[in-house]
Amino acid sequence: MTERVYLDWNATTVLRREARAAVLAAMEVVGNPSSVHAEGRAARRLVEEARENVAALVGAEPRNVAFTSGGTEANVLALAPGTGATTHSKLLVSAIEHASVLAGGRFPASAVEQLPITGSGQINLAALQRRLAALPHGVLVSVMLANNETGVVQPISDVASLVHQAGGTLHVDAVQGPGRIRCDIKVLGADLLTLSGHKIGAPKGVGALIRRDGAKPFPAALISGGGQERRTRAGTENVPGIAGFGAAANDTLRNSPSERLRLLALRERLELSLKAHTPSMVIFGADVERLPNTTLFAVPGMKAETAVIAFDLEGIAVSSGAACSSGKVQASHVLAAMGVSPALARGAIRVSLGWDTTESDIDAFVRAWIKLSGTLLKEQKAVAA
Amino acid sequence: MTERVYLDWNATTVLRREARAAVLAAMEVVGNPSSVHAEGRAARRLVEEARENVAALVGAEPRNVAFTSGGTEANVLALAPGTGATTHSKLLVSAIEHASVLAGGRFPASAVEQLPITGSGQINLAALQRRLAALPHGVLVSVMLANNETGVVQPISDVASLVHQAGGTLHVDAVQGPGRIRCDIKVLGADLLTLSGHKIGAPKGVGALIRRDGAKPFPAALISGGGQERRTRAGTENVPGIAGFGAAANDTLRNSPSERLRLLALRERLELSLKAHTPSMVIFGADVERLPNTTLFAVPGMKAETAVIAFDLEGIAVSSGAACSSGKVQASHVLAAMGVSPALARGAIRVSLGWDTTESDIDAFVRAWIKLSGTLLKEQKAVAA
Repeated sequence: MTERVYLDWNATTVLRREARAAVLAAMEVVGNPSSVHAEGRAARRLVEEARENVAALVGAEPRNVAFTSGGTEANVLALAPGTGATTHSKLLVSAIEHASVLAGGRFPASAVEQLPITGSGQINLAALQRRLAALPHGVLVSVMLANNETGVVQPISDVASLVHQAGGTLHVDAVQGPGRIRCDIKVLGADLLTLSGHKIGAPKGVGALIRRDGAKPFPAALISGGGQERRTRAGTENVPGIAGFGAAANDTLRNSPSERLRLLALRERLELSLKAHTPSMVIFGADVERLPNTTLFAVPGMKAETAVIAFDLEGIAVSSGAACSSGKVQASHVLAAMGVSPALARGAIRVSLGWDTTESDIDAFVRAWIKLSGTLLKEQKAVAA
Repeated sequence: MTERVYLDWNATTVLRREARAAVLAAMEVVGNPSSVHAEGRAARRLVEEARENVAALVGAEPRNVAFTSGGTEANVLALAPGTGATTHSKLLVSAIEHASVLAGGRFPASAVEQLPITGSGQINLAALQRRLAALPHGVLVSVMLANNETGVVQPISDVASLVHQAGGTLHVDAVQGPGRIRCDIKVLGADLLTLSGHKIGAPKGVGALIRRDGAKPFPAALISGGGQERRTRAGTENVPGIAGFGAAANDTLRNSPSERLRLLALRERLELSLKAHTPSMVIFGADVERLPNTTLFAVPGMKAETAVIAFDLEGIAVSSGAACSSGKVQASHVLAAMGVSPALARGAIRVSLGWDTTESDIDAFVRAWIKLSGTLLKEQKAVAA
């Protein structure tokens, strides 16, 4: 089999070696963490060690970490009318959020309102301020740390200031952040923060909702029953997944500073080469801060779904947008919110890098682009003609 | 380290070799099952293969299996006022259900009603019939297949007939069943069925809700967002856990017939030895059908929490009741529902066996019982005196 080149790290990441070892070790521990015998206590210990590592990744206290089955569940858990100490009658979300946030969690659809986005892909702070001023105090706001499609980093500290001045609560879906940009929950000012294991090199099936202030209660349980996770999330803990998450968090935190620079250099190499070959290429969000690992680009006239399949046949995995859903081809809601024309948005291809990505992976993509782009663009022109 | 003897299989089971291998293989597959490239398709394939194996375990069609993060989540997903084609205004649950069922899922507490249990530990069918006759048509009923504490098997086919005659929907929490008794969803007549991976030798963190009739919709999603699991359960799939679940289901199904007899012989050996030494011992549910792997016993005057710790120090893991919660000592709601006196219930010890249990494990427990029981019973008498 030919060596594949995986450049779809925002969809899911390669498992870290440390995470694999932790999963393997945890699978040998038979106990249920709720059992009082030695086997149970050993399983409990794995969960609590992982809680410390995940907390450290975002500068939180371990008791403020509630494990979930993933980012989506953490988002739905967070978005409850009863989140925090107060009751929220309204949920404001940016128009570029993940599907689980756009769906509004446990709010009725009528209570959910979308906030506009600038052409660069960032939340419109002035519009947020106006909405907060017009609404009663105490709304819940959900804005992601960095967008999964464009990589555009959101001005979360500014959002937090505005939300807190208006007596509101801020939830931040930070799944794309760790290892790529700083994600300290106190610096960000998020009241609640979502993490996903498989976005940082842990296995799929585990995530966390993290609160900044231990004095404020977590949202009411979404999954009720047993008393696990201090009654925030019932059900026997996913001990292998949680142990893998802890190990991946630890590895991510330790390697972040050098990794960020390495990713940035790789992305520079990619974008300079692509632009040199195809000057008409548009790179979305290029004028604002982006995750160092993400490039979303389009060329007028290209069709992304055709391109993704062509790259796949060349042995390269990239994405035509978010890959978190049912696989059906849909126009990107993110690019639509940025005011990008549907014609251009249809051609958007996302290349996202990770710790295993090398210069030769980048060069392989550039070679494939040079090989394919002529055909991909010509086909479209032929169809249009 | 001394060899430990694990006899707490109803709390959680030893991972099956086939499940471990499947998890390991799945962790090497990087793709997100929602991605269209080769990596994504490989991950999707693992999920769909597992779906076939889990479906086969209970005689269901693969498209009727929705994966969840475990039994608790499947129960909460199942117990929705909108379950099935109709709307349910009332939820009837047996008084011996798991905490997640007793909590009523997504029903308001006022809509949940408990059904009485006989002294043998089975649901009182006459009482169920009376309640169904008194209520409007179309209630949702949840009765477990076999109780986790006593192992008592419930007359599910009879329950299903009564519920369906009354136009109702039946949910069955069957997590303790597979590999121990027959669990065919059609034979049982359950409309919805809950399974848990880690109760059958898969890793913790995965389960399923299974419907009998593909023409009836699943309950509305509990976790909304992406379109995974045909919109029944959003979030990137726990691919390693699901793959492990599929492998464990396959192994369980293949070995069930011989395994049941083996477990039964081991349990006979256990109970005969215990009764021979301690004739005053009460074995709960002994006069009705029980899971072949479960013994719940008590001796007047004993304190279970002390006994569990004493056994643990002898290298043996057993339980004082359900281990699915926060680990705090509580009187068993199951024994209370059976009318067992609190004094006797406080001394109840559960010994539960599994595929890795040997005769020498049983003999080790019996030896420990002979060694410890004098002290455990004497202490109590001294306290009482």
